[in-house]
Amino acid sequence: MEHSTVDQHAATVRTLVDLQLGSESVPLDDALGRVTVADVTSPVDLPLFRNSQMDGFAVRAADTATTTALPIAGEIAARAGSPAALEPGTAVRIMTGGIVPEGADAVVPVEDTIVAGDAVSIQHPRSAGETVQILRPRQAGEYVRDRGSDLRAGGVLVAAGTVLAARHLAAIAAAGLATITVRRLARVAVITTGAELIAPGAQPRPGQVFDANQVALVALVRSTGAVVTTAQRVPDDVEALRTALTDSAAVSDLIITSGGISKGEYEVVRELLAPLGGAVEHLAMQPGGPQFTATFNGAPVVSFPGNPVSTQVSFVVFLRDLLLDAAGLPHPPRSRLPLAQAVDSVAGKRQFLRARVVNGRVELVSGPGSHLVVGMAAADLLVDVPADTTRLEEGDTVETWLL
Amino acid sequence: MEHSTVDQHAATVRTLVDLQLGSESVPLDDALGRVTVADVTSPVDLPLFRNSQMDGFAVRAADTATTTALPIAGEIAARAGSPAALEPGTAVRIMTGGIVPEGADAVVPVEDTIVAGDAVSIQHPRSAGETVQILRPRQAGEYVRDRGSDLRAGGVLVAAGTVLAARHLAAIAAAGLATITVRRLARVAVITTGAELIAPGAQPRPGQVFDANQVALVALVRSTGAVVTTAQRVPDDVEALRTALTDSAAVSDLIITSGGISKGEYEVVRELLAPLGGAVEHLAMQPGGPQFTATFNGAPVVSFPGNPVSTQVSFVVFLRDLLLDAAGLPHPPRSRLPLAQAVDSVAGKRQFLRARVVNGRVELVSGPGSHLVVGMAAADLLVDVPADTTRLEEGDTVETWLL
Repeated sequence: MEHSTVDQHAATVRTLVDLQLGSESVPLDDALGRVTVADVTSPVDLPLFRNSQMDGFAVRAADTATTTALPIAGEIAARAGSPAALEPGTAVRIMTGGIVPEGADAVVPVEDTIVAGDAVSIQHPRSAGETVQILRPRQAGEYVRDRGSDLRAGGVLVAAGTVLAARHLAAIAAAGLATITVRRLARVAVITTGAELIAPGAQPRPGQVFDANQVALVALVRSTGAVVTTAQRVPDDVEALRTALTDSAAVSDLIITSGGISKGEYEVVRELLAPLGGAVEHLAMQPGGPQFTATFNGAPVVSFPGNPVSTQVSFVVFLRDLLLDAAGLPHPPRSRLPLAQAVDSVAGKRQFLRARVVNGRVELVSGPGSHLVVGMAAADLLVDVPADTTRLEEGDTVETWLL
Repeated sequence: MEHSTVDQHAATVRTLVDLQLGSESVPLDDALGRVTVADVTSPVDLPLFRNSQMDGFAVRAADTATTTALPIAGEIAARAGSPAALEPGTAVRIMTGGIVPEGADAVVPVEDTIVAGDAVSIQHPRSAGETVQILRPRQAGEYVRDRGSDLRAGGVLVAAGTVLAARHLAAIAAAGLATITVRRLARVAVITTGAELIAPGAQPRPGQVFDANQVALVALVRSTGAVVTTAQRVPDDVEALRTALTDSAAVSDLIITSGGISKGEYEVVRELLAPLGGAVEHLAMQPGGPQFTATFNGAPVVSFPGNPVSTQVSFVVFLRDLLLDAAGLPHPPRSRLPLAQAVDSVAGKRQFLRARVVNGRVELVSGPGSHLVVGMAAADLLVDVPADTTRLEEGDTVETWLL
């Protein structure tokens, strides 16, 4: 039997699952972690208006060079309302964020002033005829935030392709935008197959096993930023699978199945989909040798073998980066690390071994069996052993895929 | 005025906000990213029963040494049902995952066999009297997955303190557990204050600004794994704030406010909470100099200044790691990196400058103004300049906080 390589099948999957997701508009409160599709530009200047950086007094800077006491002509708070222009030779109280009035060009912080008859605080009651002493001359522009000094209208608030964090949302909100256009999320259906499968929490009869693949695939899909449309479990029954696929295809960009593609008697995925053009591949890969791809009612179907470790490793190898790319999210890093132990590998098969990093070196945490789901849980990464490698020594560096 | 240090205030906040969250049970489908509070042990052996690793024939290994053809006595699929014991000198067809019957101790893969009258496939119809040729002697145990070989009942599926990923959920599901005990999420209320604030999307009148702090604080809280209970915006009105705090305290472990704590005229948070024991601190810190803490109806209240950059930096400096600790999640890394440019800093104040990494070196992306919300959005990290530093040269290494 001719075996394809992992890379060949990855290319097949990438061609089949050509996710062109487009965009959608979402409220800012739902946009955390979403990805912009274009530069987000501001419809307004930021700040919106010239305003005070401090609690203090708005003045004409020139006046502070020639006099040390100015009559207080009024007060400007940070709230709605247009202040009157500042008369030369006067000061107005101003709060942080208040509009700096026409005629004023500097703000004197309250701590650099003395208000006559109210020497320490500006919080006391006051009367007409108060004056403020400015303790030293001030420069024009001091403690004034100019309109547009953060960004001019039309400028870029957040660049295209940004994964939106709090600080990006804050800038967008500051510009008055209540919604933002982001990449649409991929919609993915999960179907696990196998007559032996029962839901966690059920009571198993002899021969039955708990379905670990549904929860794994749902979580793996969500971890790539996609949404799970439906998650269904079907027995080895072609009609049940046809119904599940029909339901899934109607609402999904991609359908992932597990089980039913191998050489056994009851291979429901292959039985239904091979006559519709589905293709089985026997890869030089362990775990995950048999792989299957098809199209059903227009939706791409990527089918993994049913052993739980095979399912998870297959997702990581064939779909994870593809879905992250579709979402506009970065790939988990791959890195070369030294082995803490010697490793034997099967000739002619690219192996993905379960391991973790201890003191900077890679330790295997599980045997190669594709049923060792607890061993998989103990792993932080996969060790990618090339097909032509049969032995690695302690200290040899290996390619690793972060889980 | 005596200024406290950032570290002193951080200690104050940590003492005030003593989150003891306890645990809750959640369905596996809701557990992605949640954190285990104790080792999760398996109530069952994994695998649950001795089963076949391959599609093929279950045999007595000893028989394969003395004969090359065995009568086929039946078939075992992967599904509910207890197979009969294997008679010595016979074979049974078995599918991957099928129960290996009593009396059998090895599985021969189908590709290593020839079925008489059906030489290639085991998928054809068959009749009584079929035999299977075993092409070479087999070892006991071959292609048999022993009960409990992945984990014995009582063994640890997932350790305490694990941030649950797909592979952990798969192991828990495989053991039949439908729910899992995880750390409860912190419940955090957000209150933004200021008469000038309006919601993004509204039409501003002169002097009004869009509230960037609500969306920022909500997103920052969520980024630490906590949930936002309520997000309210109140004007400079003590009774409105009292109502908002009352509502928030009833459902929250922590209340965060922005604005209303400075030296101005309309400082609603200070006005309401200082008489109730709230404490203002003037920190040797920029941005974020004024800080305020209180307790309201038993709930800790942490109050930040209202400038958007001050609010965000204050959260990162005083609450982010605290909330991540409460959630059991790791801190974002701090690292020392070289500056791409010289930097001047204010004497006597610890500054948190907005910057990003370009070619491994730190470039400032914004001036120091605490209103520069677009500059903040362009940053990847904060540069932490010590209070006694007034000048850093290009190439000097600085402490950075990843945003």
